[in-house]
Amino acid sequence: MTTGKFITVEGPEGAGKTTVIKQLEKALIKRGYDVLLTREPGGIDIAEKIREIILNPEHTAMDSRTEALLYAAARRQHLVEKVLPALKQGKIVLCDRFIDSSLAYQGHARGLGIDEVWSINQFAIDDQMPDCTLYFDLDPEKGMERIMKNQGREVNRLDLEELSFHQKVYEGYQLLLERFPERIKTVDASKLIEKVSEEALGMITAVLTDE
Amino acid sequence: MTTGKFITVEGPEGAGKTTVIKQLEKALIKRGYDVLLTREPGGIDIAEKIREIILNPEHTAMDSRTEALLYAAARRQHLVEKVLPALKQGKIVLCDRFIDSSLAYQGHARGLGIDEVWSINQFAIDDQMPDCTLYFDLDPEKGMERIMKNQGREVNRLDLEELSFHQKVYEGYQLLLERFPERIKTVDASKLIEKVSEEALGMITAVLTDE
Repeated sequence: MTTGKFITVEGPEGAGKTTVIKQLEKALIKRGYDVLLTREPGGIDIAEKIREIILNPEHTAMDSRTEALLYAAARRQHLVEKVLPALKQGKIVLCDRFIDSSLAYQGHARGLGIDEVWSINQFAIDDQMPDCTLYFDLDPEKGMERIMKNQGREVNRLDLEELSFHQKVYEGYQLLLERFPERIKTVDASKLIEKVSEEALGMITAVLTDE
Repeated sequence: MTTGKFITVEGPEGAGKTTVIKQLEKALIKRGYDVLLTREPGGIDIAEKIREIILNPEHTAMDSRTEALLYAAARRQHLVEKVLPALKQGKIVLCDRFIDSSLAYQGHARGLGIDEVWSINQFAIDDQMPDCTLYFDLDPEKGMERIMKNQGREVNRLDLEELSFHQKVYEGYQLLLERFPERIKTVDASKLIEKVSEEALGMITAVLTDE
């Protein structure tokens, strides 16, 4: 029984997700909506601890299936403790990355299989799929270029992967677009950030008023 | 490509698994077999850390699906780092509890569903099912009685569950016996420990020589 709206934002590194999602939050609050902006692990104690295990550089023996299960576990706890309560209160939840990231990165790019990663994530989310997902579409080479230029941005583990990996992630997202044409809406992330925000806001507005 | 034999031991608390499995190890070594006796998390750093999160008494907010995913993640890492290498070396791996514990305890007794817990565990073990599973069959009331009498035994979190929970676990195992009649062999654990060991050893010998 949720009355809010669950909106996730997806896409490759360097597509401007983090900047745009903050602008979306502001714009929606301005319009009088109650908004929760979050991303996994989202300050949830158990989920943070799981993430520490995933990201610990000493854990070189980490198997990719172990990693996928840990991401699913952290997702579950963040969903239960943070997302679902907000949805029950009627909030708009904007979540930076969710199930599709696992499907594109681990399912496709890491080669575990989209269906396999889908299955453990379905267990984790127990049918709580997003009402709408904005996919920030950007050529992987352009994404990498932007990351390299942006000196202020903290470089993370995924940024350092080879371009071929980011191309596989891109492919993964294309497969998801084919699979979920109703839920996932594509935003052209190659435009200027203001244009991207505007387009994204228009899409969310359509979802919020389409009832 | 594994050449060893993977044997798991299952059953309720108080059924004497831990005592018997050590006797089995000794008996098999005496017969010249190369044996690895283990149980999850089995000293595997990543799996130990996952288990710490599961067992941390501060984690009262732990959702049961999060817990099931964490158990599956720890299982995966223990399998990859410890069980599979031993099987590749041709060893007999005796593992105290494995996938069936999750199915009986979390799938059935906790009510997550045997099929659902099966699905995430299949992802974790990637087809590496045990060659044979010995199920220590004991009436749950008798199991509880034995635990209460045995002052030297360390009481764990599961020991403290209500009898009704242990009865559900028992039911869960009965469902698994029906589902996997070839793989799971029932040992009558109500007998004296020497008799139980003898019966279990006979079953393992049959598996080892049946090639």
